[in-house]
Amino acid sequence: MKNILGANDEIAAHNREHFAKCGVVVMNLMGSPGSGKTTLLEQTLAQLVGKLRVAVIEGDLFTAKDAERIDRLGVDVIQINTAGGCHLDAAMIQKACATLDLDALDLLIVENVGNLVCPAEFDIGENFKVVVLSITEGDDKPLKYPLIFKESAAAVLNKIDLLPFTNFNVQSARADLSTLHPTIKIFETSCTRGTGLDDWTAWLLEKAVRS
Amino acid sequence: MKNILGANDEIAAHNREHFAKCGVVVMNLMGSPGSGKTTLLEQTLAQLVGKLRVAVIEGDLFTAKDAERIDRLGVDVIQINTAGGCHLDAAMIQKACATLDLDALDLLIVENVGNLVCPAEFDIGENFKVVVLSITEGDDKPLKYPLIFKESAAAVLNKIDLLPFTNFNVQSARADLSTLHPTIKIFETSCTRGTGLDDWTAWLLEKAVRS
Repeated sequence: MKNILGANDEIAAHNREHFAKCGVVVMNLMGSPGSGKTTLLEQTLAQLVGKLRVAVIEGDLFTAKDAERIDRLGVDVIQINTAGGCHLDAAMIQKACATLDLDALDLLIVENVGNLVCPAEFDIGENFKVVVLSITEGDDKPLKYPLIFKESAAAVLNKIDLLPFTNFNVQSARADLSTLHPTIKIFETSCTRGTGLDDWTAWLLEKAVRS
Repeated sequence: MKNILGANDEIAAHNREHFAKCGVVVMNLMGSPGSGKTTLLEQTLAQLVGKLRVAVIEGDLFTAKDAERIDRLGVDVIQINTAGGCHLDAAMIQKACATLDLDALDLLIVENVGNLVCPAEFDIGENFKVVVLSITEGDDKPLKYPLIFKESAAAVLNKIDLLPFTNFNVQSARADLSTLHPTIKIFETSCTRGTGLDDWTAWLLEKAVRS
């Protein structure tokens, strides 16, 4: 395991250097299956188009369903299928990037495999990570899956419109997140209602320019 | 990876033999973080108590939150903390079982780590697997994460009460599940409304007696 992570870190360092040379900022977007990563991405891209030159890498075990959704927005997208693998690694990203014109991009968004555990363990050379946690998953998740929340610059509490139908306690989740990671930025979004997206996108825009 | 799985399979075979000798049936309960495994388990145990002698093994990366919930029901429970590990393996189950009186049990329920990928790859010596998929995760999940659905004797479509607030298509999910695994048994449950639980529990009761 140490060897695998060591080899991955080396390629991730190469990726990071290459991204910096090309002047592209890379976000690693993570979260459970069905937390709403792709839908958040669709809404985010709609707001970013015209402001930033963006491309997307979609990570899934199988199918090109997510890449097809991004492609419909007219945004360049590459689908990686891990064929059962539970996370993206730096080598997969390196290979996918060989077919992208990174110099022509401001922001590259990598949507990782739906998994609250393994993706957080593998550096892909990104500038920063973001984790999406949907309200329906429960407010106990930060303490039960701490690494991904410790590693992420921001946590997006998504599907906030479903709050009245769950026992999710936003105050308690925010307190746990802040305990795990005092500087984490927390957003509350609903992609079906369109709420909270302006704050989230403004933050991302600034990260893309300043990173 | 082959070596790890080979070593695991050996211990799983030992576990399976030991469970058979003790006359205990073992269910491996899997699903994404927040799909509602523990809540389903609470409701299930409430129905099984008095009909079967049941114990539970709870798998989590960190915390004993889930075991505490089961303990409150007066059911014997052992918490395994994987300390970051993304799945339970056969050796963890072997070790946990050493502290259980298996001869005095009819059914042992193992709630795996919240993860739609890795737990399906590791045999723990169970008699059968069950996967919980919550409506809010989306109907595209069976095709995107096929292994876990191919491996499971039953799929529980949970949080069915939230159906009106999502774009989940039950017919499409059922069709995909049946394509992946023609004999899979499908249940629709709501643990907050208490719907669908009688059918699910009746099936489980029969599996526990006949396996």
